[in-house]
Amino acid sequence: MRQNVVEAILMKHSTVRGTPLVSWNEGPRKASILHFVERVTAEGGVDYVPALDRIAVFDNDGTLWSEKPFYFQLAFALDRVKALAAQHPEWQEQQPFKAVLEDDLESVLSGGLKAIIDILVATHGGNTTDEFEQIVSGWIASARHSATGRPYTKMVYQPMLELLDFLRAKGFRTYIVSGGGIEFMRAWVEDVYGIPPEQVIGSTIETKYEMRDSGPVLVRIPKVEFVDDGEGKPVGIHKFIGRRPILAFGNSDGDHQMLQWTAAGEGARFMGLVHHTDAEREWAYDRRSQVGRLDKALDEAHEKGWTVVDMKHDWRVVFPWESKNKVWRQKAQRAQTRS
Amino acid sequence: MRQNVVEAILMKHSTVRGTPLVSWNEGPRKASILHFVERVTAEGGVDYVPALDRIAVFDNDGTLWSEKPFYFQLAFALDRVKALAAQHPEWQEQQPFKAVLEDDLESVLSGGLKAIIDILVATHGGNTTDEFEQIVSGWIASARHSATGRPYTKMVYQPMLELLDFLRAKGFRTYIVSGGGIEFMRAWVEDVYGIPPEQVIGSTIETKYEMRDSGPVLVRIPKVEFVDDGEGKPVGIHKFIGRRPILAFGNSDGDHQMLQWTAAGEGARFMGLVHHTDAEREWAYDRRSQVGRLDKALDEAHEKGWTVVDMKHDWRVVFPWESKNKVWRQKAQRAQTRS
Repeated sequence: MRQNVVEAILMKHSTVRGTPLVSWNEGPRKASILHFVERVTAEGGVDYVPALDRIAVFDNDGTLWSEKPFYFQLAFALDRVKALAAQHPEWQEQQPFKAVLEDDLESVLSGGLKAIIDILVATHGGNTTDEFEQIVSGWIASARHSATGRPYTKMVYQPMLELLDFLRAKGFRTYIVSGGGIEFMRAWVEDVYGIPPEQVIGSTIETKYEMRDSGPVLVRIPKVEFVDDGEGKPVGIHKFIGRRPILAFGNSDGDHQMLQWTAAGEGARFMGLVHHTDAEREWAYDRRSQVGRLDKALDEAHEKGWTVVDMKHDWRVVFPWESKNKVWRQKAQRAQTRS
Repeated sequence: MRQNVVEAILMKHSTVRGTPLVSWNEGPRKASILHFVERVTAEGGVDYVPALDRIAVFDNDGTLWSEKPFYFQLAFALDRVKALAAQHPEWQEQQPFKAVLEDDLESVLSGGLKAIIDILVATHGGNTTDEFEQIVSGWIASARHSATGRPYTKMVYQPMLELLDFLRAKGFRTYIVSGGGIEFMRAWVEDVYGIPPEQVIGSTIETKYEMRDSGPVLVRIPKVEFVDDGEGKPVGIHKFIGRRPILAFGNSDGDHQMLQWTAAGEGARFMGLVHHTDAEREWAYDRRSQVGRLDKALDEAHEKGWTVVDMKHDWRVVFPWESKNKVWRQKAQRAQTRS
C-alpha cells in the first residue's frame, strides 16, 4: 500500500496541470485563494514566503469531509460498542452503552459531551497502536453513511481536495489540525487526502511502551491526553510544527483560535471558513448547530475580511461522485480500490 | 535568517559531492552505515525502502553534541536562575536556587533529579513561546562551555553532522528525538544541524493560548507535560511522526527503548550507539556515569549486533574545529556568523 501512496502523491502533480480549482465557481472566494497563493509564491515579490514556511493547516470534520448527522468518528465508536458488547455484558444495563446497543441515538446524544467521551474512551483504548490502526482501516473500508449510503471516505469535499493538491503543487505543506483522534485519522487520510501521518495533528489518548514476548508495543490507555480543539489547536500546531501557518481553513468555532493564531503572524495570511449553506447537496447549518457550530468565528470572519466560502454558491460540485472531471474521478476510484 | 537556513539546507548537497563520512575512519562501523544506506536505497533491491519511510531519528545530548560535565540545557537553566534572581528575592534562601546563585554546583547536583527539575521548571515557564525563543537564541549565541571555552553550538560532533547530511542526501528525513526541551532545541538546531522545527521531538511543558491586547500568544506554564526519554521516546516518535524509524542513533540507556522500537520493525534496520571512549578529545564514560549512562543498551547492542561507535577509534575528528575539511570549516564559520 505504501508504494501506492508514494505514487499517488507523485501523481498529484499531473492533476493540476490544467486550470486549478475547477470545482470552484468563479467569484471573490476563488479569487482570494488564487491571489493569495500568487502573492506568497512570486519570487522577488514583497509577500514572497520561502517554501519551508508555506504551512497550510486544515480542520477535518466539516472542512475536508462532512460531519452530519454527527462526527464520523462517533459512528466508528458506536459500531465499536456493538463489536465489543460481548466482552462487556455490563453494558446491557449501563448508559450510555445500553442506549447505543438499543440503537436509541436520541438517548445517547441527550447524555451530552460526557456520554460521548465515555463512548470514545471505552472504544479507543485497550489496543496496541498497530491493532487500532487495523481496526480503523477495516471499519473505514466497510462502513457506510446512514444518509448517503456512501463510504465515509467518499464524503470528502471535491473542491477542498483540489485546494490541497493545488497548494502542494505550489510548494505548500498541507497539515490536518483536527479535534478528531490522531490515530483514527492517520489510518486513512494519506490515501484519501495525500496527507502523510507526520502532517496529521489531532486529539490524543495516552500511550504506554510495553515489552512483550513478541516484542515492544505501544498500548493505548483509555485516558484523554490532549484535546486538539478550540484553544488546543494553536497549542497543537506550535507543539507539532513549531512554525506558524500562513494559511488556515476551518468551518466552526472550534477553529476560531487557529484562525486567530494564523492571522496574527507577520506577512501575507489566508484565513478561510467553509460555511455550510447547501441543504440540498450537503447540509445547511451554522450558529445553532450542536455539531460544527459556527458563530463567533463567523462574526470575526466578517469583521476581519476572512474568506467565508458559501458552499452552495461557490462550489460547482460538493462530493467527488458529482465531479465531471475525469482525472479526479479516476483518482477517487483508485483510492477506493486501495482502501 | 530563515532565508539563510534555506540556503544552508540546499547547500548541504554540495558537501556530500565527494566521499561521504570523511571524518569517519575506515572500519566495521563506517562500513555498517554505508552498507545499510546502500541496501535501503537500491531500487529494485529486496531491502529497498521508499523515501517517505526513510525516517532517521537521533538523540541529541551525547549523540549530536556533548553532554559533559552536565546537559547543556542545565547550563542554560543555571544562567537563567542568575538572570531572574532579582525578580526572585526568595531564591537567596531557597534551595536549590541558593546554591546556584552561590556557584555551588556540587550542592545543586547533590539535590538529584528533583533539584534539577525545580530549576528547569522555574526557568522555563512564565514566558510566551516567542519570548522564550529569543531568550534561548540570545543565550546560545553568547554562552561558552566551561571546559573548552567554545560556544555550545561548536561542541557538536563533526562525524555526526556528516552522517546527517549524508542521510538527507540519500532521501532520509532526519529527526531529533531528545529528552531535552523541544523549544530549547528548536531555537538553534535548524542552523546547526539543518533539522527544521517540525522534525524536532523533545520534552514539553504545558502551553496555554491567551488573547492579549497585542494579539494571541502561547504562554509557557511551569508544569511538565511530557518527558521524551526512555519509554517516552517511542511514545513521542509515534505521536509526532506516526511512522516507525528505520534508523536510530543514541548514546545512553535513555535511548534504549527507541532503539528497541526501531529494531522491532519489518525490513532492514540500523541501530547505532555513540560510545564515549575518548577522554582526550572529548570525555570517556559509560556504565557508571550520572549523565548519559550507557549500560543496559550497551549490553543489548553487543548481544544483537547493533553498531557501537567507538569514538576514539572510529572518528578521525570529534569537533568541527579539528576538521581539515575546508567545506565543513567554512560552513561552520558561516553558521557561527549567523547565530
